[in-house]
Amino acid sequence: MISWNNLDASKAFAHLQTLRNRVCLPEVLSGEEGAKRVRKASVPMAAGLSYNYAAKAVDEKVLDALCDLAKETQLTEKFAALYNGEVINTGEKRKVLHHLTRGQLGEAVVADGVDKREFYLSQQERVAEFADAVHSGKITNEAGETFTTVVQIGIGGSDLGPRAMYLALENWAKQNGSFYMEARFISNVDPDDAAQVLRSIDVSRSLFVLVSKSGTTLETLTNEAFVKDALKKAGLDPARHMVAVTSETSPLASSKEYLAAFFMDDYIGGRYSSTSCVGGAVLSLAFGPKVFGRFLEGAAAEDVLAKEPDPRKNPDMLDALIGIYERNVQNWPATAVLPYSQALSRFPAHLQQLDMESNGKSVNRFGEKVDYVTGPVIFGEPGTNGQHSFYQLLHQGTDIIPLQFVGFKKNQAGMDVDIQGTTSQQKLCANVAAQIMAFACGKKAEDPNKSFAGGRPSSIIIGEQLTPEALGALLAHFENKVMFQGFVWNLNSFDQEGVQLGKVLAKRVLSHDTDGALRVYSDLMGI
Amino acid sequence: MISWNNLDASKAFAHLQTLRNRVCLPEVLSGEEGAKRVRKASVPMAAGLSYNYAAKAVDEKVLDALCDLAKETQLTEKFAALYNGEVINTGEKRKVLHHLTRGQLGEAVVADGVDKREFYLSQQERVAEFADAVHSGKITNEAGETFTTVVQIGIGGSDLGPRAMYLALENWAKQNGSFYMEARFISNVDPDDAAQVLRSIDVSRSLFVLVSKSGTTLETLTNEAFVKDALKKAGLDPARHMVAVTSETSPLASSKEYLAAFFMDDYIGGRYSSTSCVGGAVLSLAFGPKVFGRFLEGAAAEDVLAKEPDPRKNPDMLDALIGIYERNVQNWPATAVLPYSQALSRFPAHLQQLDMESNGKSVNRFGEKVDYVTGPVIFGEPGTNGQHSFYQLLHQGTDIIPLQFVGFKKNQAGMDVDIQGTTSQQKLCANVAAQIMAFACGKKAEDPNKSFAGGRPSSIIIGEQLTPEALGALLAHFENKVMFQGFVWNLNSFDQEGVQLGKVLAKRVLSHDTDGALRVYSDLMGI
Repeated sequence: MISWNNLDASKAFAHLQTLRNRVCLPEVLSGEEGAKRVRKASVPMAAGLSYNYAAKAVDEKVLDALCDLAKETQLTEKFAALYNGEVINTGEKRKVLHHLTRGQLGEAVVADGVDKREFYLSQQERVAEFADAVHSGKITNEAGETFTTVVQIGIGGSDLGPRAMYLALENWAKQNGSFYMEARFISNVDPDDAAQVLRSIDVSRSLFVLVSKSGTTLETLTNEAFVKDALKKAGLDPARHMVAVTSETSPLASSKEYLAAFFMDDYIGGRYSSTSCVGGAVLSLAFGPKVFGRFLEGAAAEDVLAKEPDPRKNPDMLDALIGIYERNVQNWPATAVLPYSQALSRFPAHLQQLDMESNGKSVNRFGEKVDYVTGPVIFGEPGTNGQHSFYQLLHQGTDIIPLQFVGFKKNQAGMDVDIQGTTSQQKLCANVAAQIMAFACGKKAEDPNKSFAGGRPSSIIIGEQLTPEALGALLAHFENKVMFQGFVWNLNSFDQEGVQLGKVLAKRVLSHDTDGALRVYSDLMGI
Repeated sequence: MISWNNLDASKAFAHLQTLRNRVCLPEVLSGEEGAKRVRKASVPMAAGLSYNYAAKAVDEKVLDALCDLAKETQLTEKFAALYNGEVINTGEKRKVLHHLTRGQLGEAVVADGVDKREFYLSQQERVAEFADAVHSGKITNEAGETFTTVVQIGIGGSDLGPRAMYLALENWAKQNGSFYMEARFISNVDPDDAAQVLRSIDVSRSLFVLVSKSGTTLETLTNEAFVKDALKKAGLDPARHMVAVTSETSPLASSKEYLAAFFMDDYIGGRYSSTSCVGGAVLSLAFGPKVFGRFLEGAAAEDVLAKEPDPRKNPDMLDALIGIYERNVQNWPATAVLPYSQALSRFPAHLQQLDMESNGKSVNRFGEKVDYVTGPVIFGEPGTNGQHSFYQLLHQGTDIIPLQFVGFKKNQAGMDVDIQGTTSQQKLCANVAAQIMAFACGKKAEDPNKSFAGGRPSSIIIGEQLTPEALGALLAHFENKVMFQGFVWNLNSFDQEGVQLGKVLAKRVLSHDTDGALRVYSDLMGI
């Protein structure tokens, strides 16, 4: 029997509150004991990744209390309820089934009269068939030429996740893939976004993927019209250049204006849709269906690990719980995500949506105001770039910002250069190791301006190389982390009512149905 | 006589502390009074921009107290001392002269035996001459072909600012400029960054701008070697494809390995160098020297406004002071920067460095620990993209995050489309107006999950169009804002000692001079 209770109703949480500021990182990471701590604190993830939390400010007592919290808040049971098809998104009365896009974790889930795992798989196969036909030249443009570019038109989860995944594998695919087709993305309603993309591609050889679950997203429909206009002006037939990714009930589903339509449904939230055909269409077109399949395998394997009830062996749950300790016991308001991999340049932007849109909420799943803080601010840029930018504040600012590093031993492109006796990749790897210790242990200096207090906690996810499998595991890790944190906070992590009011008011501005301050702001903006 | 005192030594600050939570935004922005408030709270900026703070949670009493604080902390006098050449960067014993790269604000400043305004101007002219020679085909590659691409190699301030400025004007230049040359950027020591850029350009027709003030930045020298390697492999002579931007005393200054060298000096911090030849070389090559000149004019005009002693008439100082109120009285730990302009997609990343590296410090300018919080976390993405991402937390999360909007009435590219009776640009503008009111005033609903508490403060900078002048004014606004905040906090905003420890430790890792935990982390990373 599952009970959905607020965090502050938990005994384990009351105990946890007594365990504040227990760990002095410069102490626990010093000497041979420090070395042991780092060796011990690695938890295996899927695809050869591992999660190391040695530089997090937790000790065995804190971990024990977090394990108690996991048990008391029934994290494993709640996850099982979710993947077995319970209506976890209570506000919108929906199941939450993104895990089924990559594997069957539990019982068969039937909804709308179909087995949902089979449904998602069938869409994945339809996308694969279509992508193969494009690649082999069975599907071409009006002139019989192959398509060379794929352009995703979507916003939010239809943009950030797929874009981050594309950038993450672009170099890898050029080096290792059997196939590579350039992808571009149009998202913003700012017409300069579409203009910029359209000016830099050959529209006659471009295939556009229109992504909107409802088929009514204003930004996306506007950009579709923008693109169709450009196609027509170039003397092309839009219906031969566009596919739709949408729900079966949307107006786009059976339109003749598209070469094909691929389906998702209401059980896949936008920010959780990278492994559905929202990510699948553009990624299968760009890299080939096999590479997309490998990405899904990595995610599926990480999901299986997330079923483990012991947090010390479950990297997703452990990461979530340490985050709760940092947010609700240590009261740190932000978390920085710092991948030491240029390929992950937009991964922090995806996590920003994933985390902040899921858990940036003030009411629990029953609509009652909670009396504790929930989702933190998430931000980040790739290292080493960040080192030459905002790391100053992370090292010596007045607030402590917990850090989440990601690093790989090998680079993707297979090009490197030896300078001063080491390769670029070695320098990259040396920097992330150095930063962890610099943040945790600091360094005293006579000049206080050159002193580092240390005590700035971090974890790191380490892999051999950013392969499709590793990327899938990484994505699933964070999805599951956010899900577990939502369970602990007793939130519905799968709706986003906070985005509605702005939409309503924007419509009023556009129809000149405003007065007072909103009228003046509209005037100032020239509307 | 200037006194450098801590914020908590100030009488005005003590008074300000009694003025917490005074303003209920839904109240003050309602009805006709609300409309008046918005009309009244606009402060003119340069280049036709204006700063509107009607939706900030301040009233006349708070503003009066902030004006007292500005006077007591001698903001105008300190700014004058800075532009008249006092050694404001005390830690490094340097003057702070980036304002002189765009205009003469006060007395002539002589250093190293030269008039510094003349020096910066002469470098700007040398860059202009060089750019004109490249554009006219006087300077070509080995085969006598013109250069088509310029690639900046630099990191931190040599990357983020120039890159953000380039992206900000790319569409504008294509539409309005007399000249356009594609620019790319290599920054990360991750070899995949350079590989990605080199694979996507024609190196034989590319000109590389190597930017390193000291001539010793490891990432940049490594990427230079990477690029030279690629040029040689393509049978090209690197010396015919590279220019250097550096200080006159650096090893790069007189090297024969460059077509030319352009100079900056120690008085221009990296994050303040976009208006020096660090930004000037790449921007003059990309858009032509005239466009770069217009950008400088906008910045210079905003600097003049920053001299105004009355904060109510000084948009840079007022923005700074309201930020102090939000950080040190309201205790809000982060600020989101939200430009409603796709062209400003990397502007928040630049501000992240500018602000967090300048004021993310715990000791005052004398090296004494301060007892108040300083620089906040800065993050952001362009609207409307952010609306479909992290705005959920901004609207309904448990923490209040102050917001800084930027918007323009006209887009840059001159392409647009009419859908449902309005253009994309109108939708964009309607959204930012709507968001300000949604954040400030919220909306009660029967379902608490659909309720918005409001009370989330924002300001907006509004302009006609993002022109070179407007961009210059925008950049200078934030530079001056950060400077004034540094004065209030009594910090040295112009050094960055917090980046040193990581560098030292990374070198130790690379030379295998490690033990304990750092040894184990290095092992885990394969070093």
